[in-house]
Amino acid sequence: MALIVQKFGGTSVANIERIQNVARRVIKTFEQGNDVAVILSAMAGITDSLIEMAQEITRTPEKRELDVLLATGEQTTAALLAMTLNAMNYPSKSLLGYQAEVVTDCTFGNARIMDIRASRIREFLKQHYIVVIAGFQGCDLDGNITTLGRGGSDTSAVAIAAALKADVCEIYTDVNGVYTADPNVCSKARKIDRISYDEMLEMASLGAKVLQIRSVEFAKKYQVPVHVRSSFSEEEGTMVVNEDESMERLVVSGVTCSKNDARITLIKVPDQPGIAAKIFTPVSEAGIIVDMIIQNRHSGKFNDLTFTVPRPDFEKAMQIEQEIAKEIGAEDVLGDRGIAKVSVTGVGMKNHSGVASHMFAALAKENINILMISTSEIRISCVIDEKYAELAVRAIHTAFNLDRG
Amino acid sequence: MALIVQKFGGTSVANIERIQNVARRVIKTFEQGNDVAVILSAMAGITDSLIEMAQEITRTPEKRELDVLLATGEQTTAALLAMTLNAMNYPSKSLLGYQAEVVTDCTFGNARIMDIRASRIREFLKQHYIVVIAGFQGCDLDGNITTLGRGGSDTSAVAIAAALKADVCEIYTDVNGVYTADPNVCSKARKIDRISYDEMLEMASLGAKVLQIRSVEFAKKYQVPVHVRSSFSEEEGTMVVNEDESMERLVVSGVTCSKNDARITLIKVPDQPGIAAKIFTPVSEAGIIVDMIIQNRHSGKFNDLTFTVPRPDFEKAMQIEQEIAKEIGAEDVLGDRGIAKVSVTGVGMKNHSGVASHMFAALAKENINILMISTSEIRISCVIDEKYAELAVRAIHTAFNLDRG
Repeated sequence: MALIVQKFGGTSVANIERIQNVARRVIKTFEQGNDVAVILSAMAGITDSLIEMAQEITRTPEKRELDVLLATGEQTTAALLAMTLNAMNYPSKSLLGYQAEVVTDCTFGNARIMDIRASRIREFLKQHYIVVIAGFQGCDLDGNITTLGRGGSDTSAVAIAAALKADVCEIYTDVNGVYTADPNVCSKARKIDRISYDEMLEMASLGAKVLQIRSVEFAKKYQVPVHVRSSFSEEEGTMVVNEDESMERLVVSGVTCSKNDARITLIKVPDQPGIAAKIFTPVSEAGIIVDMIIQNRHSGKFNDLTFTVPRPDFEKAMQIEQEIAKEIGAEDVLGDRGIAKVSVTGVGMKNHSGVASHMFAALAKENINILMISTSEIRISCVIDEKYAELAVRAIHTAFNLDRG
Repeated sequence: MALIVQKFGGTSVANIERIQNVARRVIKTFEQGNDVAVILSAMAGITDSLIEMAQEITRTPEKRELDVLLATGEQTTAALLAMTLNAMNYPSKSLLGYQAEVVTDCTFGNARIMDIRASRIREFLKQHYIVVIAGFQGCDLDGNITTLGRGGSDTSAVAIAAALKADVCEIYTDVNGVYTADPNVCSKARKIDRISYDEMLEMASLGAKVLQIRSVEFAKKYQVPVHVRSSFSEEEGTMVVNEDESMERLVVSGVTCSKNDARITLIKVPDQPGIAAKIFTPVSEAGIIVDMIIQNRHSGKFNDLTFTVPRPDFEKAMQIEQEIAKEIGAEDVLGDRGIAKVSVTGVGMKNHSGVASHMFAALAKENINILMISTSEIRISCVIDEKYAELAVRAIHTAFNLDRG
């Protein structure tokens, strides 16, 4: 007998019929002799339509109140699933964020979990209830409702699994696991059976959409085994666990691609101490996160400086840099929205040399020009022209022998 | 400067535009230098559609979970109004039932308020926030969400006004006060300026739909002045207060009519001790509330026994009585759904004789046959054929000099 946490996303609870399917799956796990705690998202689309409703009132709704509004989404699905389980003669209780004692800081809209006391969850589990918990929501120390930000239900699930010391946290989604590349882009992509927390972290931040990054950080910190699997099939999915020997056979685990960035270049920046601070401080003060930065010698006492920002912040960042360029006497500011970041990730990289050059060669073979490069211990990313993104993913996937069959 | 509690019903918050109207009215009261606590219902129709959703799952949804689901309705409007007030630059905070510390018993779906601690409301008011509280909901001592039953937001409002020792509890609705009769039936009906708690209690239980009975009981118990008024006009409505001298000038305050009952008659019931208990115990055990009871001598050692039950329980009550009739040897059971109960109410009655005969005369003049009669200290009710209901209301209204102008 195990203690299993199961999380179902918005598409899995999109209507009453699907909620009944979720109930059947939960019951199956319960009938196998396990204790089951279920974490739910809101019905697909509901969070967006609640935000739209708030924006009918004002473009910048008060964040505390927006959280109160958004929290109704998960409250609804939690009540409906608990109702369904009871109707199927499996005693069940729903718990909202504050009832499950998911304590967060008071950053409305993007709160961080500080503590999960979970005494009510434990008590109900002991009494053999199936416990259904509204994901995405918590409460701060003053009893205000908070929400955890986009995809926050993943984090709720992993954090609750950690608090309960659950044997596994199953994340049910509409794909049946983590793939070596996006199967929509690369038809030869294979499902990964086991992946390390670190690789999953890199892949999640690089555009693999199966898990929210913070949930993986939580899983790593508290060593929660996470099982990513499909709510529409019985197939085993991907286990996200500690790095182990079986993983080292592969140098690269996956290829990801993100089109969320834009590139800005300052031409002929005077080579003076403190100039980088002048360029980046106003951007960060505007709340814009700079990702990759590259500096090239131009000629004489000048440099060219290139960096990437999230695409939605592109216009604002361009405006800021145009003013700064004047101030510091740079020649020009160039902008480019049409870029893609292609990355390979793998713990095996740590013990293998030549991974980067192998990747560059694969791109060169397709005549794809590399605009920027950045690396971490287990990742190499190249910025390229957006139009080559899919081709690049397929070429790299093949070059690292990841193709199926 | 006063402390004013304002309650707005479902039609007043039916969409964003109306919520903005409510905000403007709240702000007006606030700008006059008052502290304001607002209690809201769910958007009109929402509670019904949530119940429908639950009934897609099962005809008898688990009551605890149904309350969790229904509570989202008032949570939504409370968040939206607080958001609107903030957007209009009036700092506001929403509070849900558990946050406002509305402590109830654990009768899910029809909980009774046991205590309102209201420390958070008081604290926010002190900090000059407009406090918006989700009506209809509370929580029990174990922290479970409860709801107060149909029209429960009226009760929330009055109970919170009592806890805060508010100067007045304003109930905003779609009519502009309590009338001497339903203006849809009796075009000469007049708005009542002041009415006593006791009269309001009688009228609420007799078909006047402006206030939930329990809210009036609460108001009477805690001496909360209640002002029933329209959310669509500035006009003064009806004050519900303690009986005072100004009220005694009128013998009768209002005429009400209810078509919610049905009549059952047992013919030739043997005149034996204990027979009434045999007839009524199974009915009450089935959860059916018997209202009026009349016993007439039939002939010999037999009686005819007539009583009324709520119309939705009529079929079930008939079934029960048909079995009992066989058991006790009564001759027949007759049923009649087509009845109406017409009543006059007034504290002035206590000091006036002849009110009943005046009412009977008014009905006789229109050739309306009286089927049953019941009285209280401040009320006389007659059951008549349903088809004469409106005529009877108008005739009685005129007979007691209640007509306008």
